[in-house]
Amino acid sequence: MVLTAFSASAQDIQLPVPRKNAEMTLYQALQNRASNRSFSSAPISDQILSDLLWAAQGINREDGRLTAPTAMNTQEIRLYVCREDGAYEYIAKDNKLLKVSGKDLRGDVAGPQAGVADAPLFLVISCDLNRYSRKNDHTKVMGAVDVGYVSQNICLACVALGLSTVPRAGMNQEVLREELGLAEDHLLLINHPVGYKK
Amino acid sequence: MVLTAFSASAQDIQLPVPRKNAEMTLYQALQNRASNRSFSSAPISDQILSDLLWAAQGINREDGRLTAPTAMNTQEIRLYVCREDGAYEYIAKDNKLLKVSGKDLRGDVAGPQAGVADAPLFLVISCDLNRYSRKNDHTKVMGAVDVGYVSQNICLACVALGLSTVPRAGMNQEVLREELGLAEDHLLLINHPVGYKK
Repeated sequence: MVLTAFSASAQDIQLPVPRKNAEMTLYQALQNRASNRSFSSAPISDQILSDLLWAAQGINREDGRLTAPTAMNTQEIRLYVCREDGAYEYIAKDNKLLKVSGKDLRGDVAGPQAGVADAPLFLVISCDLNRYSRKNDHTKVMGAVDVGYVSQNICLACVALGLSTVPRAGMNQEVLREELGLAEDHLLLINHPVGYKK
Repeated sequence: MVLTAFSASAQDIQLPVPRKNAEMTLYQALQNRASNRSFSSAPISDQILSDLLWAAQGINREDGRLTAPTAMNTQEIRLYVCREDGAYEYIAKDNKLLKVSGKDLRGDVAGPQAGVADAPLFLVISCDLNRYSRKNDHTKVMGAVDVGYVSQNICLACVALGLSTVPRAGMNQEVLREELGLAEDHLLLINHPVGYKK
């Protein structure tokens, strides 16, 4: 039992400290921002992944606030990494990947779109509507705006890190909700295949 | 009559070419991204405004694609500038401000929130749902994501240009819809007071 508990915990991944030292200016990143749907299967190091996840919605202030704004600072966006060795939730405050599934879900995120399935990893952005005091059509829309903030951070950071990506809405919602543990009160809106350009 | 037509047209503003030369790296902009609600009333030059609007959703490729992605490349986001001399729509392809109202609408964008009302200008982001083949709850949500892309570009560009901003949802919808000519099939979701820090 002790061994089981240990090995379950050991499946989480402590990420290297994000470097934040990519030299590209914001304006160069904006100039080169473009969607790409064709990826090399070359792996992405945990260092580069850490740099990318921090940009997406890392903590940038001592009070725990994030690189991406959220409505009323609800911090309701959850970010998942799907790769060959399983699926993980990014926990910004610990700079850690928390393992949520042992399955390779990349095919379920890619769906029928050829090309993107070669990406070594996918980021999946969801919005936890339970973080709002009310859940209605308006909070869904505001949550969707907050998904956009994180998604644009990913688009721009990929440019600065020499990676390619495209924000996509299509994915196998049923499988992903089951494996990531996301009920209907979570919006599952956007995913990003991420890899080096083919 | 000729004089009237001429002077109406002359109220549009040709912006200076955006410079795209701010030296701040993307990662520095992410590190310093923070909401600010207290503004100096110091004016923002048309050059700085041009730099900011290009970052928000300027054209970054010869085929007319933008710094911010949009669902299926619908380019459904409309961006307005409200300042003392009136309200304008940003026309990216002509790098022009098209005058839509002669009124100073800043108080209507600010609403009851003190502090932000001092900002020399507000950007207002709306989403034209008519650009989608279908209009339903799902397209509203996807349009809201696209609003988030533009809003995050504004947040980051303000950092790089030495400006402050905060994305806000509150505004006098009724007056703004009337003055900007936006019917209910336009989502009016987010505005940004923009100014130098007080």
